[in-house]
Amino acid sequence: MTRETILEILESIQRGETSPADALTHLAKLPYEDAGFAKIDHHRSLRLGLPEVIYSAGKTPTQVAEIFSRMVGAGGDVIATRAGEEAFEAVREVLPEARYHHVARIIGFRQTGHRPGIGPVAVVCAGTSDLPVAEEAAVTAEYLGLEVERIVDVGVAGLHRLLAQGDTLGRARAVVVCAGMEGALPSVVGGLVAAPVIAVPTSVGYGASFGGIAALLGMLNSCSPNVSVVNIDNGFGAAYVAAMIVRSGQRG
Amino acid sequence: MTRETILEILESIQRGETSPADALTHLAKLPYEDAGFAKIDHHRSLRLGLPEVIYSAGKTPTQVAEIFSRMVGAGGDVIATRAGEEAFEAVREVLPEARYHHVARIIGFRQTGHRPGIGPVAVVCAGTSDLPVAEEAAVTAEYLGLEVERIVDVGVAGLHRLLAQGDTLGRARAVVVCAGMEGALPSVVGGLVAAPVIAVPTSVGYGASFGGIAALLGMLNSCSPNVSVVNIDNGFGAAYVAAMIVRSGQRG
Amino acid sequence: MTRETILEILESIQRGETSPADALTHLAKLPYEDAGFAKIDHHRSLRLGLPEVIYSAGKTPTQVAEIFSRMVGAGGDVIATRAGEEAFEAVREVLPEARYHHVARIIGFRQTGHRPGIGPVAVVCAGTSDLPVAEEAAVTAEYLGLEVERIVDVGVAGLHRLLAQGDTLGRARAVVVCAGMEGALPSVVGGLVAAPVIAVPTSVGYGASFGGIAALLGMLNSCSPNVSVVNIDNGFGAAYVAAMIVRSGQRG
Amino acid sequence: MTRETILEILESIQRGETSPADALTHLAKLPYEDAGFAKIDHHRSLRLGLPEVIYSAGKTPTQVAEIFSRMVGAGGDVIATRAGEEAFEAVREVLPEARYHHVARIIGFRQTGHRPGIGPVAVVCAGTSDLPVAEEAAVTAEYLGLEVERIVDVGVAGLHRLLAQGDTLGRARAVVVCAGMEGALPSVVGGLVAAPVIAVPTSVGYGASFGGIAALLGMLNSCSPNVSVVNIDNGFGAAYVAAMIVRSGQRG
Amino acid sequence: MTRETILEILESIQRGETSPADALTHLAKLPYEDAGFAKIDHHRSLRLGLPEVIYSAGKTPTQVAEIFSRMVGAGGDVIATRAGEEAFEAVREVLPEARYHHVARIIGFRQTGHRPGIGPVAVVCAGTSDLPVAEEAAVTAEYLGLEVERIVDVGVAGLHRLLAQGDTLGRARAVVVCAGMEGALPSVVGGLVAAPVIAVPTSVGYGASFGGIAALLGMLNSCSPNVSVVNIDNGFGAAYVAAMIVRSGQRG
Amino acid sequence: MTRETILEILESIQRGETSPADALTHLAKLPYEDAGFAKIDHHRSLRLGLPEVIYSAGKTPTQVAEIFSRMVGAGGDVIATRAGEEAFEAVREVLPEARYHHVARIIGFRQTGHRPGIGPVAVVCAGTSDLPVAEEAAVTAEYLGLEVERIVDVGVAGLHRLLAQGDTLGRARAVVVCAGMEGALPSVVGGLVAAPVIAVPTSVGYGASFGGIAALLGMLNSCSPNVSVVNIDNGFGAAYVAAMIVRSGQRG
Amino acid sequence: MTRETILEILESIQRGETSPADALTHLAKLPYEDAGFAKIDHHRSLRLGLPEVIYSAGKTPTQVAEIFSRMVGAGGDVIATRAGEEAFEAVREVLPEARYHHVARIIGFRQTGHRPGIGPVAVVCAGTSDLPVAEEAAVTAEYLGLEVERIVDVGVAGLHRLLAQGDTLGRARAVVVCAGMEGALPSVVGGLVAAPVIAVPTSVGYGASFGGIAALLGMLNSCSPNVSVVNIDNGFGAAYVAAMIVRSGQRG
Amino acid sequence: MTRETILEILESIQRGETSPADALTHLAKLPYEDAGFAKIDHHRSLRLGLPEVIYSAGKTPTQVAEIFSRMVGAGGDVIATRAGEEAFEAVREVLPEARYHHVARIIGFRQTGHRPGIGPVAVVCAGTSDLPVAEEAAVTAEYLGLEVERIVDVGVAGLHRLLAQGDTLGRARAVVVCAGMEGALPSVVGGLVAAPVIAVPTSVGYGASFGGIAALLGMLNSCSPNVSVVNIDNGFGAAYVAAMIVRSGQRG
Repeated sequence: MTRETILEILESIQRGETSPADALTHLAKLPYEDAGFAKIDHHRSLRLGLPEVIYSAGKTPTQVAEIFSRMVGAGGDVIATRAGEEAFEAVREVLPEARYHHVARIIGFRQTGHRPGIGPVAVVCAGTSDLPVAEEAAVTAEYLGLEVERIVDVGVAGLHRLLAQGDTLGRARAVVVCAGMEGALPSVVGGLVAAPVIAVPTSVGYGASFGGIAALLGMLNSCSPNVSVVNIDNGFGAAYVAAMIVRSGQRG
Repeated sequence: MTRETILEILESIQRGETSPADALTHLAKLPYEDAGFAKIDHHRSLRLGLPEVIYSAGKTPTQVAEIFSRMVGAGGDVIATRAGEEAFEAVREVLPEARYHHVARIIGFRQTGHRPGIGPVAVVCAGTSDLPVAEEAAVTAEYLGLEVERIVDVGVAGLHRLLAQGDTLGRARAVVVCAGMEGALPSVVGGLVAAPVIAVPTSVGYGASFGGIAALLGMLNSCSPNVSVVNIDNGFGAAYVAAMIVRSGQRG
Repeated sequence: MTRETILEILESIQRGETSPADALTHLAKLPYEDAGFAKIDHHRSLRLGLPEVIYSAGKTPTQVAEIFSRMVGAGGDVIATRAGEEAFEAVREVLPEARYHHVARIIGFRQTGHRPGIGPVAVVCAGTSDLPVAEEAAVTAEYLGLEVERIVDVGVAGLHRLLAQGDTLGRARAVVVCAGMEGALPSVVGGLVAAPVIAVPTSVGYGASFGGIAALLGMLNSCSPNVSVVNIDNGFGAAYVAAMIVRSGQRG
Repeated sequence: MTRETILEILESIQRGETSPADALTHLAKLPYEDAGFAKIDHHRSLRLGLPEVIYSAGKTPTQVAEIFSRMVGAGGDVIATRAGEEAFEAVREVLPEARYHHVARIIGFRQTGHRPGIGPVAVVCAGTSDLPVAEEAAVTAEYLGLEVERIVDVGVAGLHRLLAQGDTLGRARAVVVCAGMEGALPSVVGGLVAAPVIAVPTSVGYGASFGGIAALLGMLNSCSPNVSVVNIDNGFGAAYVAAMIVRSGQRG
Repeated sequence: MTRETILEILESIQRGETSPADALTHLAKLPYEDAGFAKIDHHRSLRLGLPEVIYSAGKTPTQVAEIFSRMVGAGGDVIATRAGEEAFEAVREVLPEARYHHVARIIGFRQTGHRPGIGPVAVVCAGTSDLPVAEEAAVTAEYLGLEVERIVDVGVAGLHRLLAQGDTLGRARAVVVCAGMEGALPSVVGGLVAAPVIAVPTSVGYGASFGGIAALLGMLNSCSPNVSVVNIDNGFGAAYVAAMIVRSGQRG
Repeated sequence: MTRETILEILESIQRGETSPADALTHLAKLPYEDAGFAKIDHHRSLRLGLPEVIYSAGKTPTQVAEIFSRMVGAGGDVIATRAGEEAFEAVREVLPEARYHHVARIIGFRQTGHRPGIGPVAVVCAGTSDLPVAEEAAVTAEYLGLEVERIVDVGVAGLHRLLAQGDTLGRARAVVVCAGMEGALPSVVGGLVAAPVIAVPTSVGYGASFGGIAALLGMLNSCSPNVSVVNIDNGFGAAYVAAMIVRSGQRG
Repeated sequence: MTRETILEILESIQRGETSPADALTHLAKLPYEDAGFAKIDHHRSLRLGLPEVIYSAGKTPTQVAEIFSRMVGAGGDVIATRAGEEAFEAVREVLPEARYHHVARIIGFRQTGHRPGIGPVAVVCAGTSDLPVAEEAAVTAEYLGLEVERIVDVGVAGLHRLLAQGDTLGRARAVVVCAGMEGALPSVVGGLVAAPVIAVPTSVGYGASFGGIAALLGMLNSCSPNVSVVNIDNGFGAAYVAAMIVRSGQRG
Repeated sequence: MTRETILEILESIQRGETSPADALTHLAKLPYEDAGFAKIDHHRSLRLGLPEVIYSAGKTPTQVAEIFSRMVGAGGDVIATRAGEEAFEAVREVLPEARYHHVARIIGFRQTGHRPGIGPVAVVCAGTSDLPVAEEAAVTAEYLGLEVERIVDVGVAGLHRLLAQGDTLGRARAVVVCAGMEGALPSVVGGLVAAPVIAVPTSVGYGASFGGIAALLGMLNSCSPNVSVVNIDNGFGAAYVAAMIVRSGQRG
């Protein structure tokens, strides 16, 4: 049901064809979608200028390609996360201009023109094994319209490399920190900046890392109070939160 | 070692009493505190205009009162979180103007003058049992200089009460959502706003809530991508993250 | 906002004072509460003839008494679960006719007249230690309008006592089974009846019972497919589910 | 031992060949099967008009086919759950009319004639990844003789889609809700209906979803009291419980 | 229903008052208790010469005393485990000859005469902190009619003390080993004897002992194949298993 | 060092070539193996008449075959558990008379002649999925010299099948019970027999069975006190404990 | 049995009263204690010059005092860890010179004279809440004969304070690091020193710190390879390991 | 920024071109790297004479080979841990003299000349399944310059084999003990030596070993106070800690 349906009911009151009481009965039965839906949710992506996002895990390459091209047809930018090479091959067959970000495992397609990024945000990771998660965050952030600065290979067991990045960190409006194993990096970064830090535990490690639980718990217990946490390996979510933070500031 | 120590070394070069090479050797041995400390950390609270914070759990009333008055002596605002009535009595003996926020269990003292709050941020909670955590967040946020809007008693099993708060939620630059039991509220709120949501799992519940683990896991797995999470019952941390978000926007 | 508010808007269209387009704008801004609230949630308890329920854990006796008497003032039946003796004393001071069910730890107040119970439902428990949870279920079920048959002390290590209750079990429209330790009773009962079984793990046990986790896991893995599970010690919830089941059948 | 054996003993008393005391000794030694078995369990499936069910996981295609055709030989309907394509191929070789429900991964065979379904029950799921579990529930429910209404893609982060299904939900005699990640959907659905809700946590998710544990805990801690829970991914069990609920109502 | 009821039915066949077919119908409806109960369970304790056992945790002193004296009235020996001093005081008031085993926290009462113990069994523990559990096992074992040899303070970090007990261990028909912390003792003892070892993890320890989980897991993973395990702190159960083992041998 | 070495030292005292004090010094330095080893451990398998056992998991077929034939060369019986078909092929090449027990996944070789089994012990399992574990127990028990009675497909959701086996259970000197899912079978069996019950949790199940943890916890919390537990899927260990129990009785 | 017993046997060979073969039989039956005990374990504390240690948790003040004075009677130094004030009062009554270390909760008694400490070792902790554990380590280390340097209040969120302690850390032969919450400090310290780091997780924290599990996991997953870990709150154990490390170096 | 940069600033003071105050401002802005980096971390491996280490898990053979040859180019020794055969093939193509340690899964390359090992350290393991972890420790230790003594197949269920190694254990300056299953071996070894014991839990086992958690918990709860623990399967880390211990002693 659309805005037109409601308008029609209201006009029939005006025309005297429906009594207000009957109209009320009608309206009360309308699904929420019709009455209030558009205000809350409809075309949220388009209005906010955000790309549509497909979570590809558990979908076949064909399914990813189908959804992807349908969304592209709707006119906005589109990205597919957790996408393997096969999914990209399938997408490229129907959309030859689609682009694949290998490390991030993201398929992207831009058709809304390029605006200068806002921010900047920093995406930090400790080791090369955390790179896929960090790149998922960084590439997502770029498609979400942010300017991104990447800082890699700055573990807490070799502080100097991190401390040397003080200026870059200091400029950031939000900092995404990806770390596996003991997950200590967000605490240390949190102590160096006066911006919100979004911590992403990664499943990097073995034994008592329990697939990222050790890092997750470490981050939740951070002694730096400017740290909040997203799910294990959730680079996408961290970038999304960072985008909300920067956009929240833009509105002011 | 202080700024004066370093200056003295530099001046002795100027006076020709120390060679640059010797001075370099000296400087290289200086503890980091002397070389870089002020830039990173020193007086951070004062520079940012944030209050000093005392975490009172595990401290005796006397200890809280001592630290509190010492910090007040340093000139800034001070709050003590997780503070019982006894701690407040002890503080009030030495600082009669200190104020106690009962539900939040926060002792506060303001001496820097009152500026209009920035924001606003919304602090949302599901039930009356979550109120202490929500109030810890709200009161902390106020001391951190934010304008706070409280939304209480809006559980996911009675959506209408939440939906009725759409305007307030829509205005917020950041939303803190406190919830125990299944911890579903941040997901629902996250779907209603285009701002960052900071989720605080509370230890409210019994049995398989496992002291807040159920809520924590629910929030980490939120299907709303604008949600990040802090530790169980960590209302203070959520407020701090919210303050960083709003301030990050102010800087732009 | 109420039904009247909406009617007023509609009537002003009829009177020609408001155009349908303007009215639409108004209506779109109405909080959901006004448009759809009553349909979904309002007075649900009253319409369904269910008592209002207060969860007393974490509330002071005074708070329980206050909420209790306010709810009684609204005209329906009221129960308070997880209520200690002190809470009951506080309630009885303002409502001398309130009744206390000691084992169930429920305070109850009936003012809607007594209808014959529907059902029956059976409430089964293995040992005397599970009685408080079983009684929470049984007493709640009675206030929810069900006819209840109690079967106690029928553990799986002494099958004959359980088998002797075959007729009572066979009559039940739903069976609530409370068990701690290994939580095996619902599986065995599930094999004896052709009705839905609602399993309640109890925190009875020690060591590797982990406060009810062993029983909970046992019940979730039941080899009887007619078993579903509620939270540890949640006798109230089990009774509520049973009431929904019996009422669902009444509607047919 | 059979009914005939017992009758023979009793007749030998009648004929004076056995004393009552000796007969008692004999009877006391009879296995339960003979005395009471048929009353409790024998041919339960047939009497209740329920299909026989094969759990195919861990069985070879050949084993599934063998058991399947043996059960079909016994005259009732038969379904095999968790069955892959290979198992279906094996069944189809011996029973060409068997049918395969791909998404549900169920092989079905009907020979008892088709009766109109009773109910209805609603089967709800949040996302397309939960579809296999939801379909296992829906298809099972149909073989169990229920009328099923499917509601898909109604997550808590986009409430309007769910709210638009109010009428369908309102008609249901029982609602099966499948959800992964934070598992919040049953709580929200539970607040919208006055019927029993059977929650099925799914193993959909990653990281801190821990293969469905997050969803499971969320559901066990639901703030809607009409929610009970079955094992992770147990669509079959949820349908079975729903069938028991609807049948329990039919008996009344 | 009793043996008499069945006999009556059978006699009425003999008298020609009931036909065998009718009697069969009657008997089929008898609860299992009547048909088969005595054979399985009734007076099991008395037949086996085992004492009745009361698990006192969660019972008031009055309740313990009441059950205790009722059981004593039935003629057998009685013990109450997990019984505090108050429970003993209450029992002693009604049964002045009752005896309290302080360390074991067992109240005992013997009235069946003393037979020489069978066995022997050894009860071993590592440290003085494990003594309460070991004594619960040893005292229970004595009331169950076993001859018990106690071996205390033989930890794996000081092997010589354990090795010095080789003869005593070698004589035992079953060995109960109680250990907290890492729970390594049963593995070492298991390597020294050719008898079944029943391992009892104790909740002794702190930190990562997790209330006995570390010891429990250690024992379940024992590299000695003659080790089986009971619940944490379950000295009673270990003694009961030991009694079954020794009695099983007596039957041969 | 051997018995001969010690004897030599002692004889050199006799010959007056070594003083007792010097000999003492020598003896004190002897490794334990020499002094006491044979008494404790050496040739334990041979003395007890037990087969040597190879745990094949994590070994290559070649390694299994090599160890197997070496042990056979030592003269006793040999079994290899957790052995796949490839391992059997490798063993059969060098020992054509070796036998493979498919379901149990055990390779066996007998050369000590066949004695009549002692016992009997019963090996019970709930469903066909538990059969591999039950067969590992049963076949191991036979190689350990026990007479074994197998009872399969007796789940707690269909009690009559179990109750019909009362006589077989009643004869057993020890009962091994294998069960997955909720692991309730040992409790029920424990209530039916007066023999020690060794419970084996199996990893059969899915979702909240957590690979056997649910069954393990259920068994540890059994309300039948004659139940002790071994590791998940450890059919071998259960059989070994059963053998120790029966042998312990033989010694008497 | 003592050295004398063995000597006596050997001398009886010398005297010709016992044949070597008979003596061998005798010796083979000696408990290990006699043959090898002294070499391994006897008087280990005295030989190593280490104090005797009493773990007071779970012991009454009287028990602690009794054991304490008995050990003092044996001539060495004695400490009692985890000792409350009441235990100290009880000890002081019998040993007025005993000393109580309040923060460390250690009662100490020295009678072996004071040697200069070896080392040094550093004991580091992050916050004042970790002090009790750090002091347990530091005081224990001093009684174990080490020279201790304390470094407190050096958290990872304020790196400069830690970096300022570089010289002290650099001198240490072993570093004990106590930290709660995220447990990141040992990783950072591990990166700053070339000595072994012994990490002690503390139970300081709340919510998802789970009583020290978060810190424990963080430390086990440390990205600094020179870190090993002891049990939660085990300051004593860390000091003991440090003493072994320093002593191991002394031997060289 | 380098040492030269700082020197230049200092020299410009000397030349009178910069005032001490301005220089101070400059220096305060220098990243930590410049001021203190070299002292802490730079070329640590080279200075300590330790090899560079590559953790190969999660890297492709090509990546391992590339990093390996780049590091070899830097002049020191290099090892790659957790390296499969393919990785070795890739390394050997570019560095034909590289060596592969199969069991340890380590690729090694030495070019710094061979010095005699210091120590010795003992590397102990219980069973052949623990060998890969023990060899990772032993081979790493050798590349780190230690003299290593291997002790294998000494489980706690057969103590004599362990006790026979007393002399070797007694010589060791540090003992690495690898054990899976119940992880009891470090406690027993800890009781036999007066050196630090580094315990390595291995993931060997099944069922309730939970991939090494049982062993890990056992080791953390060791009753021998000279035991500290590293991550599951972390043979490399244990060797590194051992090297730090031995080197710490060398410095004295």
